[in-house]
Amino acid sequence: MAAANSNSNSNSNSNGNSKPKIVTGSAGYVLEDVPHLTDYIPHLPTYSNPLQDNPAYSVVKQYFVNVDDTVAQKIVVHKNSPRGTHFRRAGPRQRVYFESDAVHACIVTCGGLCPGLNTVIREIVCGLHHMYGVKKVLGIDGGYRGFYARNTVPLTPKVVNDIHKRGGTILGTSRGGHDKSKIVDSIQDRGINQVYIIGGDGTQKGASVIFEEIRRRGLKVAVAGIPKTIDNDIPVIDKSFGFDTAVEEAQRAINAAHVESESIENGIGVVKLMGRYSGFIAMHATLASRDVDCCLIPELPFYLEGPGGLFEYIEKRLKENGHMVLVIAEGAGQDLLSESIQSLDKQDASGNKLLQDVGLWISQKIKDHFSKQNKMVINLKYIDPTYMIRAIPSNASDNVYCTLLAQSAVHGAMAGYTGFTVGPVNGRHSYIPFYRIIEKQNNVVITDRMWARLLSSTNQPSFLSAKDVIEDKKEEELSTQMVDEMEYSDDNLEKKVISFTV
Amino acid sequence: MAAANSNSNSNSNSNGNSKPKIVTGSAGYVLEDVPHLTDYIPHLPTYSNPLQDNPAYSVVKQYFVNVDDTVAQKIVVHKNSPRGTHFRRAGPRQRVYFESDAVHACIVTCGGLCPGLNTVIREIVCGLHHMYGVKKVLGIDGGYRGFYARNTVPLTPKVVNDIHKRGGTILGTSRGGHDKSKIVDSIQDRGINQVYIIGGDGTQKGASVIFEEIRRRGLKVAVAGIPKTIDNDIPVIDKSFGFDTAVEEAQRAINAAHVESESIENGIGVVKLMGRYSGFIAMHATLASRDVDCCLIPELPFYLEGPGGLFEYIEKRLKENGHMVLVIAEGAGQDLLSESIQSLDKQDASGNKLLQDVGLWISQKIKDHFSKQNKMVINLKYIDPTYMIRAIPSNASDNVYCTLLAQSAVHGAMAGYTGFTVGPVNGRHSYIPFYRIIEKQNNVVITDRMWARLLSSTNQPSFLSAKDVIEDKKEEELSTQMVDEMEYSDDNLEKKVISFTV
Amino acid sequence: MAAANSNSNSNSNSNGNSKPKIVTGSAGYVLEDVPHLTDYIPHLPTYSNPLQDNPAYSVVKQYFVNVDDTVAQKIVVHKNSPRGTHFRRAGPRQRVYFESDAVHACIVTCGGLCPGLNTVIREIVCGLHHMYGVKKVLGIDGGYRGFYARNTVPLTPKVVNDIHKRGGTILGTSRGGHDKSKIVDSIQDRGINQVYIIGGDGTQKGASVIFEEIRRRGLKVAVAGIPKTIDNDIPVIDKSFGFDTAVEEAQRAINAAHVESESIENGIGVVKLMGRYSGFIAMHATLASRDVDCCLIPELPFYLEGPGGLFEYIEKRLKENGHMVLVIAEGAGQDLLSESIQSLDKQDASGNKLLQDVGLWISQKIKDHFSKQNKMVINLKYIDPTYMIRAIPSNASDNVYCTLLAQSAVHGAMAGYTGFTVGPVNGRHSYIPFYRIIEKQNNVVITDRMWARLLSSTNQPSFLSAKDVIEDKKEEELSTQMVDEMEYSDDNLEKKVISFTV
Amino acid sequence: MAAANSNSNSNSNSNGNSKPKIVTGSAGYVLEDVPHLTDYIPHLPTYSNPLQDNPAYSVVKQYFVNVDDTVAQKIVVHKNSPRGTHFRRAGPRQRVYFESDAVHACIVTCGGLCPGLNTVIREIVCGLHHMYGVKKVLGIDGGYRGFYARNTVPLTPKVVNDIHKRGGTILGTSRGGHDKSKIVDSIQDRGINQVYIIGGDGTQKGASVIFEEIRRRGLKVAVAGIPKTIDNDIPVIDKSFGFDTAVEEAQRAINAAHVESESIENGIGVVKLMGRYSGFIAMHATLASRDVDCCLIPELPFYLEGPGGLFEYIEKRLKENGHMVLVIAEGAGQDLLSESIQSLDKQDASGNKLLQDVGLWISQKIKDHFSKQNKMVINLKYIDPTYMIRAIPSNASDNVYCTLLAQSAVHGAMAGYTGFTVGPVNGRHSYIPFYRIIEKQNNVVITDRMWARLLSSTNQPSFLSAKDVIEDKKEEELSTQMVDEMEYSDDNLEKKVISFTV
Repeated sequence: MAAANSNSNSNSNSNGNSKPKIVTGSAGYVLEDVPHLTDYIPHLPTYSNPLQDNPAYSVVKQYFVNVDDTVAQKIVVHKNSPRGTHFRRAGPRQRVYFESDAVHACIVTCGGLCPGLNTVIREIVCGLHHMYGVKKVLGIDGGYRGFYARNTVPLTPKVVNDIHKRGGTILGTSRGGHDKSKIVDSIQDRGINQVYIIGGDGTQKGASVIFEEIRRRGLKVAVAGIPKTIDNDIPVIDKSFGFDTAVEEAQRAINAAHVESESIENGIGVVKLMGRYSGFIAMHATLASRDVDCCLIPELPFYLEGPGGLFEYIEKRLKENGHMVLVIAEGAGQDLLSESIQSLDKQDASGNKLLQDVGLWISQKIKDHFSKQNKMVINLKYIDPTYMIRAIPSNASDNVYCTLLAQSAVHGAMAGYTGFTVGPVNGRHSYIPFYRIIEKQNNVVITDRMWARLLSSTNQPSFLSAKDVIEDKKEEELSTQMVDEMEYSDDNLEKKVISFTV
Repeated sequence: MAAANSNSNSNSNSNGNSKPKIVTGSAGYVLEDVPHLTDYIPHLPTYSNPLQDNPAYSVVKQYFVNVDDTVAQKIVVHKNSPRGTHFRRAGPRQRVYFESDAVHACIVTCGGLCPGLNTVIREIVCGLHHMYGVKKVLGIDGGYRGFYARNTVPLTPKVVNDIHKRGGTILGTSRGGHDKSKIVDSIQDRGINQVYIIGGDGTQKGASVIFEEIRRRGLKVAVAGIPKTIDNDIPVIDKSFGFDTAVEEAQRAINAAHVESESIENGIGVVKLMGRYSGFIAMHATLASRDVDCCLIPELPFYLEGPGGLFEYIEKRLKENGHMVLVIAEGAGQDLLSESIQSLDKQDASGNKLLQDVGLWISQKIKDHFSKQNKMVINLKYIDPTYMIRAIPSNASDNVYCTLLAQSAVHGAMAGYTGFTVGPVNGRHSYIPFYRIIEKQNNVVITDRMWARLLSSTNQPSFLSAKDVIEDKKEEELSTQMVDEMEYSDDNLEKKVISFTV
Repeated sequence: MAAANSNSNSNSNSNGNSKPKIVTGSAGYVLEDVPHLTDYIPHLPTYSNPLQDNPAYSVVKQYFVNVDDTVAQKIVVHKNSPRGTHFRRAGPRQRVYFESDAVHACIVTCGGLCPGLNTVIREIVCGLHHMYGVKKVLGIDGGYRGFYARNTVPLTPKVVNDIHKRGGTILGTSRGGHDKSKIVDSIQDRGINQVYIIGGDGTQKGASVIFEEIRRRGLKVAVAGIPKTIDNDIPVIDKSFGFDTAVEEAQRAINAAHVESESIENGIGVVKLMGRYSGFIAMHATLASRDVDCCLIPELPFYLEGPGGLFEYIEKRLKENGHMVLVIAEGAGQDLLSESIQSLDKQDASGNKLLQDVGLWISQKIKDHFSKQNKMVINLKYIDPTYMIRAIPSNASDNVYCTLLAQSAVHGAMAGYTGFTVGPVNGRHSYIPFYRIIEKQNNVVITDRMWARLLSSTNQPSFLSAKDVIEDKKEEELSTQMVDEMEYSDDNLEKKVISFTV
Repeated sequence: MAAANSNSNSNSNSNGNSKPKIVTGSAGYVLEDVPHLTDYIPHLPTYSNPLQDNPAYSVVKQYFVNVDDTVAQKIVVHKNSPRGTHFRRAGPRQRVYFESDAVHACIVTCGGLCPGLNTVIREIVCGLHHMYGVKKVLGIDGGYRGFYARNTVPLTPKVVNDIHKRGGTILGTSRGGHDKSKIVDSIQDRGINQVYIIGGDGTQKGASVIFEEIRRRGLKVAVAGIPKTIDNDIPVIDKSFGFDTAVEEAQRAINAAHVESESIENGIGVVKLMGRYSGFIAMHATLASRDVDCCLIPELPFYLEGPGGLFEYIEKRLKENGHMVLVIAEGAGQDLLSESIQSLDKQDASGNKLLQDVGLWISQKIKDHFSKQNKMVINLKYIDPTYMIRAIPSNASDNVYCTLLAQSAVHGAMAGYTGFTVGPVNGRHSYIPFYRIIEKQNNVVITDRMWARLLSSTNQPSFLSAKDVIEDKKEEELSTQMVDEMEYSDDNLEKKVISFTV
């Protein structure tokens, strides 16, 4: 760790939390490094990596990742531009900080279901077992709460052998409900020294807090996060696991909506897809299917009434084509929706609760509009495939991806890194500090080319006035000048969007 | 094009062929550029890109790609390493070299089927039409031969609207059989000025020859190649379209082999997968499925008899588990196979022809071995899913990918680039000169980590003696020192492998 | 027709409607016959069936159905029981009542979507064309209304060639809205003489009315109905087309509900399936999937509160298993639901409308119950796969079935039968008078063995008190004695249920 | 059993085998009855059926099947025809011959894989457990040989809970290799008193032999067969389990062949499907898919050369359409094939063995023909999906069907019937004596309507000369007169064909 530590600033700050480890490389790039057990436990012994005696790996040339390898976040090079931010490259190290016999790992899954959870669990268990000879792996049952409230299950290669063919998570899951001290107590009590945490950004925030507590107590426990979100809205990394599978399955619902709407006069098929804060699934399913006439996502401010509004567009499409398909992400139009709900009678709870579902709400709004207008009789069919998408097993591409994620996490923990998440940056697996994953969401940028491709495919209105665009452009220019190191937003988007189709 | 031309060396060489355009950038990188119509037709007028008046694209900030943007081939940065080779970034340019009304494009598909062919056709047609207002697009029927031997079909957005939901290619295809002069005559006669050629490396070689002839005649005709290979063995680009879909479908066959072999004593399921020169499909399907006990690919020199050989391993697995699954790529073991066939009686043609199919051959070899040995009765089931894989429609992920490929090709041709292929390099779509695509195949490197992952998952023998490995490593070190600019093979592999799972 | 007419009573009754043609056969059975053009148009010429010159059919022995063949409704023979009701056997006749050149057929599809509609359309067109050389077939666009309000489309084998691979109906559909006189006017104006009507029981009632009007006007127009209901609730016939496909697809939703509920503490998966008046889809999907803990159907009177009620059972299952899956048919619990809705504030329309969806309603009820009780925190996931099921193409089994239905209809119309529907009775295709199809629905009999199988599989409460059963049994005994000829209800059910799984 | 026994002739005949129990009913029908334990063990005590105390079944009216109920084999009634053969109706009886605690059942699966094997196993276990409270069920591992050569596995509802979602058989299977005495010894030694045997006609012959031996020894052991054949060629019963699933999956291969052949000039797609002695799968897949130009089955004598031959037809189709799809059942053309092979050089074993695969053989023949002729260059693609079809899990329809089969078998064994198989006859589950299942195969009758439908759909030649047909017809008339009781072959066929689509 010498090189990295030499000019790092990774000491605790005043409130006890570790500060980001920013390393300025001699070659002109900046390395945003991840913590290491040696940051707070000096003089830890190291061991030679057992992989070099593994027959499967013995034939590999240069198997170990050079300790100094980094991965560049920036690919598109503008003339004379600086080399930008780098991350530490993932992979096995020559020296490890745990003896195989001494490792006691645990795995926990938190938050909503996502295709691939079982594959990640399987590959952590098999990776630890087959690559490092680790025998003790514990499954924590039912999310963070499971650390203190529920039973655990021993995980062996035999137990996990076929689980990647099933949807869901064999460990069970739950939302929220964690108590930092009780969890770390439980980790200490059980003698666990590697913690693998699979979950979304709330979960990774929790993982960060657990890591800080472990660090505060000075424990030799590596904490590795595997970021999970079916919505694909995690920043920095190329894509999140399960996303491909989800988009594939979403197409089935769009297909059904298309068939239903086509078969009847003025048929409207409405499909609600996942995406609370970002519209990646809706956007990709729309681009992949080509049967969608309008796609509404959280990033897109749209409006219903008046010129350039949704109702006008629907009417136009029905007159042109006789039918249409509308895809809406669950987080789209939240401002319109809350406005609507506030205007409703407060008395009646149960009916109105349902309207908080944007798919039911927009369907009702469209029906009301056309029945009031009395202009045309429409036939609206609403499809919500959410749980049918979340619950399927991961496809082949996600299976391979989950394997790499899991193995990267295992290599990192064995090498003594901690407080890190894993994921591919421009196609190379990297170790990324928690704060970069949780500080913000990745969003569809509706002034970028990918969204333009969608607009071109659907022919829907942009819902943006010319004025908006110009102002937005000015703002952008300013911010570009100011944040010199930041990549152009266009480029950011393309990375998110293109690279996971690659 | 001023910047690029200034220090380029893109003039014709002595035999009339254009030389590579190598540009050494001031920022320390090398740009391997693609030809441009202006290289041999000076003073071509330019026009403003009609996209800027397109409502779908009008809201896009910085929509046009900066003429100088390049994409770096190298991501993993070793300390103090040079910045390496770059390619020209794909995307729409501010100025185009064709007026929309004047464009007369044609599309041709060549070689074997691959999921996604129809999507690429669809998106070239729709891209030209919706983005640039191009109305005249011709489909060439039945591959290269179609230029002079068969009918053509006018392609409109309406004609291609649903074709992405079907497998195969609506244009038909064929292998080989092209005559440079007759094809260019036909292009000239029909007044075609944009030629889109979808096909494998033989096809791209043909495209290169056609481009050279067009260049020689001084025609204002842009030639764009879209590389196609279900085997994913095209160098430089991250992955080829249809590969994801193929791996997904290959799993079905592996599953069946697994069920069959498990249900009977000493059951052996043999699955032949595509991969004449490279084993990417076999490797990925094996990694994704986790039910495979042995995976044989063209890159892997294996042997049947004796210690460390295949028969020994099969016997061992059957004794341990009672059944096994063997995956073999169509190009594996060609040396063993030709040896076998030569030893057969030359008289009988028809039976022996079948043995040239490596799947039938290895099945027969295994059966013969165990029946001769008389040690154990085996039950071998052979599955060849090749045509069931090739013929399915592309999945969602490939659909989006094909869209981007097609649009990149269209933007490039409109911008006057020619003699180029398109594809993502580290997730960014780029224009790549023909020679980089056709000079060699991309292969699975069996001394790299991805293959080690497979060995670890299957537990199969490496078929390499320790001596081989050591010698190989020495050689590698030498070559690394010599070819300073080349990336480590490990990294190359990982790029191929990881990035398309991303 | 001599034999049939001789002792039939098929004359018009006082209100002008044709009376049922009941024929008492000499062999001791009763034939419920269908009308024939000669019933009201005497002296119609007949022609030899062109099938006998068709090369495909020329090798068939005894190809033509004997004019007197009938199909027995009763299979299980109780000792000394009478032979019961028979129907006229479907199939080609030696003599037909139309010359091929003179036929002008039309096809119309009405009501909701159902897998197989396109296959039926395809096979009527191809059957008329290939078997009888009929060239003029018209598609009526958009249901009954299309006769006078919309365009028609000429249907040829080429037009319909691939439509069986698509869901929906290429003709479009609509509900209700027909005007007997205007429709028959339109039929007369266009010179149509064969009308094929595909639709549910409302549609078949309409077909019956149209037939009566045609009969009243004395037109030589054959009216053939092909019964359609995804719910499988048509009486007499073994099963309706699309049902198999629907049950298959319904399993996907149940699977997802199972995965979701299993992955979380006290997870409840609720799946709403089709079935307004009958629960066949819900029952079969439950029996096929084996993951369901409770299945609620329209035929089952259930209750929520108190001992033996749904809430008690849910609580019990959650305590035992930690999760459960509930399947509910759309028509289940209508009495409870309307009670609920009446008790709501009348002011708020849009929210409450949603509660008329029984799936949303029961989900809300369960959530309210457990949150009020404060006993346990539940996690309920609701899935409504209705439109995803309706819109898929028919599976292989339904495709073959639709072919036979369509060909039977064509043979019947060509042979001069009219006012009939087609369908298999105990596996033999038969011509059935309209009144037998529309007089009542077929229902799941919850005191029969098939339902008992389901109870045994789910372990759900019967929701019947012992008293109910005993009273019900008494009643049954009475009715059995009275309606001597009727089959035991158990047997009826089994026929419906078993035969289509056969 | 009084009624049935009174006028039965079920005593042993001279060679010790039981004679068929033929009962002539007073109502004019003939009952082909199955053996009963009381046939050779008099004075067996009976017990009241525990089902009547089962809460799930307590609500069922008339749950128990009347001991005298029979099922008619004949449905289509020709005027004044006799009532024909009946079978004993399956279902639970009021009195059973085993106490639940005393039952020790075993299950064995033999022969090739077939979708649904695991469902049948599951439902026998669950049926015995849940309906009759039987706790001791043993799985015999690896087919008949497992009785004496291999381990057994205890089967509980928990063990079999999810197995219906997997292909294959969890018990393993094998072909042949049984020794009557050793098997019955093993049954006696283990104290087994109910034997459930799932397998094809060879297996059922074995079951018959085992039954006879048990009968000879006078053991109170019930032997129940569940007939299994993916080919659907079992006589008497409506269809065999797994057939629907197989036809569905076969369509995928046909689809691929269609896409491949369409995409290339003179493309020929050849698909080999299961069907050693009967062509039901090929016929149904052809009828369901509609993309097939020629279907060859074992029942169809075809020829390659000359007028009316296959080669002529292929050439014609290629000239008309440019491509074609050929489906061939594995048992088709065996005479031509063995002729071919005999003409080959005997020396070379391994190559020629492959030619015994009719799909490889016909592909080679077609290629040879067209390359010799030098008339046209063809592109042939051969697909053999056999193992991919056999290994998939059963679909929903087969799942429900397997449940009924298993429960009928359980009810029969509990009621003391033995030496019987189960299956639906005209949609009603029946007990059928072994000899009726094994005496002959059910075949496609190529002079019947179903085959005519296929000819009409494919337009292929009938391969029958007019002379053949006429002679065949004469013969048929003769045999019809002679075997008065036999149903018309047309009707037999239709039953096989229609009823399982019902």
